[in-house]
Amino acid sequence: MVDYSAPVKDMQFVLEHLCDVRGLAALEPFSDFDADSLADLLHEAGRFVGAVIAPTTRDGDKIGSQRNADGTVTTPPGFKQAYRQWVDGGWAAAPFDPTYGGGGLPWAVGIAVSEMVTAANMAFSLCPMLTQGAIHMLGAHGSEAQRAAYLPQLISGEWTGTMLLTEPQAGSDVGALTTRAVRQPDGTYRLFGQKIFITWGEQDFTENIVHITLARTPDAPPGTRGISVFIVPKFLIEADGSIGARNDITCVGIEHKMGIHGSPTCVMALGEHNGAVGYLIGDEQQGMRNMFTMMNFARLSVGVEGLAVGERAYQQALAFAHERRQSRAIGSSDTASPIIEHPDVRRMLLTMKSYVEAMRALCFVNAAAIDRGHAAADEATRRHAQEVADLFTPISKGWCTDVGIEVASLGIQVHGGMGFIEETGAAQHYRDVRIAAIYEGTNGIQAIDLVGRKLTLRDGAVVRELFAKMRSFDDDLASTDLDDLRAPLAHAIDAMADAADWLLLNRANQADVLAGATPFLRMAGLVVSGWLLARSALVAAGLGAAPATDPETRAWLEAKVATARFFVTQLVPGAAALLPAVTGGVQQLDPRAFA
Amino acid sequence: MVDYSAPVKDMQFVLEHLCDVRGLAALEPFSDFDADSLADLLHEAGRFVGAVIAPTTRDGDKIGSQRNADGTVTTPPGFKQAYRQWVDGGWAAAPFDPTYGGGGLPWAVGIAVSEMVTAANMAFSLCPMLTQGAIHMLGAHGSEAQRAAYLPQLISGEWTGTMLLTEPQAGSDVGALTTRAVRQPDGTYRLFGQKIFITWGEQDFTENIVHITLARTPDAPPGTRGISVFIVPKFLIEADGSIGARNDITCVGIEHKMGIHGSPTCVMALGEHNGAVGYLIGDEQQGMRNMFTMMNFARLSVGVEGLAVGERAYQQALAFAHERRQSRAIGSSDTASPIIEHPDVRRMLLTMKSYVEAMRALCFVNAAAIDRGHAAADEATRRHAQEVADLFTPISKGWCTDVGIEVASLGIQVHGGMGFIEETGAAQHYRDVRIAAIYEGTNGIQAIDLVGRKLTLRDGAVVRELFAKMRSFDDDLASTDLDDLRAPLAHAIDAMADAADWLLLNRANQADVLAGATPFLRMAGLVVSGWLLARSALVAAGLGAAPATDPETRAWLEAKVATARFFVTQLVPGAAALLPAVTGGVQQLDPRAFA
Repeated sequence: MVDYSAPVKDMQFVLEHLCDVRGLAALEPFSDFDADSLADLLHEAGRFVGAVIAPTTRDGDKIGSQRNADGTVTTPPGFKQAYRQWVDGGWAAAPFDPTYGGGGLPWAVGIAVSEMVTAANMAFSLCPMLTQGAIHMLGAHGSEAQRAAYLPQLISGEWTGTMLLTEPQAGSDVGALTTRAVRQPDGTYRLFGQKIFITWGEQDFTENIVHITLARTPDAPPGTRGISVFIVPKFLIEADGSIGARNDITCVGIEHKMGIHGSPTCVMALGEHNGAVGYLIGDEQQGMRNMFTMMNFARLSVGVEGLAVGERAYQQALAFAHERRQSRAIGSSDTASPIIEHPDVRRMLLTMKSYVEAMRALCFVNAAAIDRGHAAADEATRRHAQEVADLFTPISKGWCTDVGIEVASLGIQVHGGMGFIEETGAAQHYRDVRIAAIYEGTNGIQAIDLVGRKLTLRDGAVVRELFAKMRSFDDDLASTDLDDLRAPLAHAIDAMADAADWLLLNRANQADVLAGATPFLRMAGLVVSGWLLARSALVAAGLGAAPATDPETRAWLEAKVATARFFVTQLVPGAAALLPAVTGGVQQLDPRAFA
Repeated sequence: MVDYSAPVKDMQFVLEHLCDVRGLAALEPFSDFDADSLADLLHEAGRFVGAVIAPTTRDGDKIGSQRNADGTVTTPPGFKQAYRQWVDGGWAAAPFDPTYGGGGLPWAVGIAVSEMVTAANMAFSLCPMLTQGAIHMLGAHGSEAQRAAYLPQLISGEWTGTMLLTEPQAGSDVGALTTRAVRQPDGTYRLFGQKIFITWGEQDFTENIVHITLARTPDAPPGTRGISVFIVPKFLIEADGSIGARNDITCVGIEHKMGIHGSPTCVMALGEHNGAVGYLIGDEQQGMRNMFTMMNFARLSVGVEGLAVGERAYQQALAFAHERRQSRAIGSSDTASPIIEHPDVRRMLLTMKSYVEAMRALCFVNAAAIDRGHAAADEATRRHAQEVADLFTPISKGWCTDVGIEVASLGIQVHGGMGFIEETGAAQHYRDVRIAAIYEGTNGIQAIDLVGRKLTLRDGAVVRELFAKMRSFDDDLASTDLDDLRAPLAHAIDAMADAADWLLLNRANQADVLAGATPFLRMAGLVVSGWLLARSALVAAGLGAAPATDPETRAWLEAKVATARFFVTQLVPGAAALLPAVTGGVQQLDPRAFA
């Protein structure tokens, strides 16, 4: 497997020109962040993950995390040391509130670092990612005492966090969970039940693990309304903050999975003895509502997995295509040309590259909207940014994970037969990234969220404002060298607007709307990221034309333009072809087809 | 993993109504085949593979084939016994020339049996598949003595066959191979070299293995023109037909692959001692030409792998979707409905089902064209059928393997989190089928073959005849209940015709043609199989309307119509969206994008 080299230039470009990272830096909550330090920060993060984390990928896959008879878990060689360095370097804390020891970076910059660690080793990255979820939950809904007791250790990475949602009968239907939480006279709870698919539910990195756990109080109503959320620490915390007794929560099994072998996916038993001690977050029966406020963060992070593994797969395929020689390319004098010179291979690589840049644009812009949603100075900007974040998040999660899988598959294909051999490493990316379309809400759930909750925001005005904004960009492209991007963009935006109109018009027929959800999400990913790449191209063309630009930078900017042009003219047209599927209605999904 | 149930009804439907299997049965070479026995034959084959071969799938994956220190290979538990029963049941021999002990089935019927054994256990199926390749090579180009010496044992399955093409530096570029074949005074050759990626290059099933081997004679010109093809048996055959000395060809390693673990992928060393004894097939330097005549068979068989694994994945996903309950479906009174009742899950299943039926239609029609290409009574029919077979084969191989991967991926997705757990078995299909897009000519090579050699057959007249035929079917649909299929079909056919015209017009600019190859192949797969499914729907609607049709059959026919309607109205529109990619030319694949 080739080394991973963080795509710092593109990250910086997107943060500066699509996310207005300087504007973010000027917001009060990010006052510790200096936008001038961005390049240094990204380079340093890239150097760190390339040197420390990327080398653990292969052993992580081959050896995996193993559960021992006593319920402990042994992580793969190198993971523990890499985690220690991740914490010691301050990377865990970087995107969090300085009040609790965080580095105060905007989430958009944090997401760039997340992309790097995920690309370096996706299985490893899930441990920090889940911890971030616990931090967001406690930060938003924990009491002052809870925040003081847990946030510093979670933010520093001294402890890790998990999310305990799924049960065998409660997957996409979280409301079906049955884990019981019984209130005790002292105000704490005792939890009893079994949770499955718990990512990093046990590990040998840290002395404590904070399990954020969904459970049902005895008198709670059925369904999601009756769910409460609890802190269930692996070890209880004494009043003085020291580590106390072992809590009644244990890893009773880990799954044998197709990928992310380094990440222990645990079956967790709560209350096999006296009950697992849990501390209620917020009020009883507010669990699902509290989950929703952290969902954008977690879902975007999973979208970034598609981006990150896609980038890693692309780098590996590109390096192979430069090295591997087969057959003479047209116009070449070699008897065997590097395969990148063959048009069909170049198409695969350019498809990979343009998808990766499209995903990066979408995810980073999404993260910046999350940042502005809580940090902008005025209420109207916050509200508008939050709407954009809400609208984009299911698209980032669903589209980027689907596309990440396609990119990893192309990475195998570029390698030919070598791609199918495990030692090459291309197959691992393909196996690893497959889960991202499933967890944190399957992509079907994302699509349902998009057409059900997000499209209807402000009665459709949020999405219509997006269409207006995308359409107005056409004026910017007019009379430029990017004129050829206008027609495909306009055609795709029109198709998406027609699809959205149909879904909004038919919203009373819920089954019809659900029937079109997945093709609409796919369409939205292509159109929105196509618009973002076209904007990138316009910026890049302008910068490239500046006389002061050095030749290396100019070449990079030209690459950006060529990549965006390929994406908009060759891949974005797929969006309009999805219109019949969006608007076919549920009668096209005829149950009689399965007779 | 659920049991496999052979889709006998659909196989029979396609063979009768799209392949005119009765017409095939009337041809002289198939005089041993009675079309009235088709249903019984398919049922019996389905029963056999379901009972004997399907149960070996999981162990085949978990345990895999292992190479021992002495160069022998131990196949997974149950494989050897299953192979024995495959041979004893006469299945190996079924689609071959009765002169040498074959069963005389048309290839189209043989392909149905191939689909079954592949669905039952893809890794296992590769052993018979490679043997078929050796049989075709010897049948077409072997001397009478060679045919007599090898065909009876290969056809019965008493021995197996392999194909030794690839070398480390010679993958897609077969012409780069360097294995040497030195002529001996007695007319035999001695071979020296190393071959890689040799499927079933060694096994413990049979006492002998016939390696069909490409090599270069010392004075041969470079490239493909200088290649000759040889029989290199594992054990030499004595004059009386008995097994003689061990030949100098050994398995020196097997690969660790992402899937098809049951199939040993061997590194074969030839001539580590005195040279591997080889017998020339045909004349020197005719190796590539001889390979081409058997390529349609082998490439179609790999296309069938996409179909077969897709069918298996679909059956498993469908069973899961009927069993698994999550959330209340719209209009249901259950608190938790079987997930098939949720529109988004139904979309996934219908996508899988319609792709599978589309692949089956394409592959079987392709096989029937191969049959008519050599067995039709008159020369004109033979020539025309052969042209269709030549045109369709790269489409069957490339499109069906790409689609098979997508179907297996959807199979995982339907399972949610369980799909990523290896014990479920859905992941194995996804890992296994991935190789099919790579071997037997990568799908890029198929696309290049399609636009380079096949589109230009008879100066484009062959493909234009196909367009005329597909367009004329519009009249058949007019004034039927399938009127809604006309517009999407016509639009897609027009787009494909435009693409073909552009490729033919620009044929002098080879790089432009190559740049559009892959999207054109994808387009061709959608359009041709969409037309075939629409034809199926029209037949099914007619049969369903017949008063004598029993209710169960009528329900099955209605399912066929609903499936075809979904495919044509929702998936076929993707074809036209590929037109800009086909006609973008090589300038859209700008090498500067990789700066």
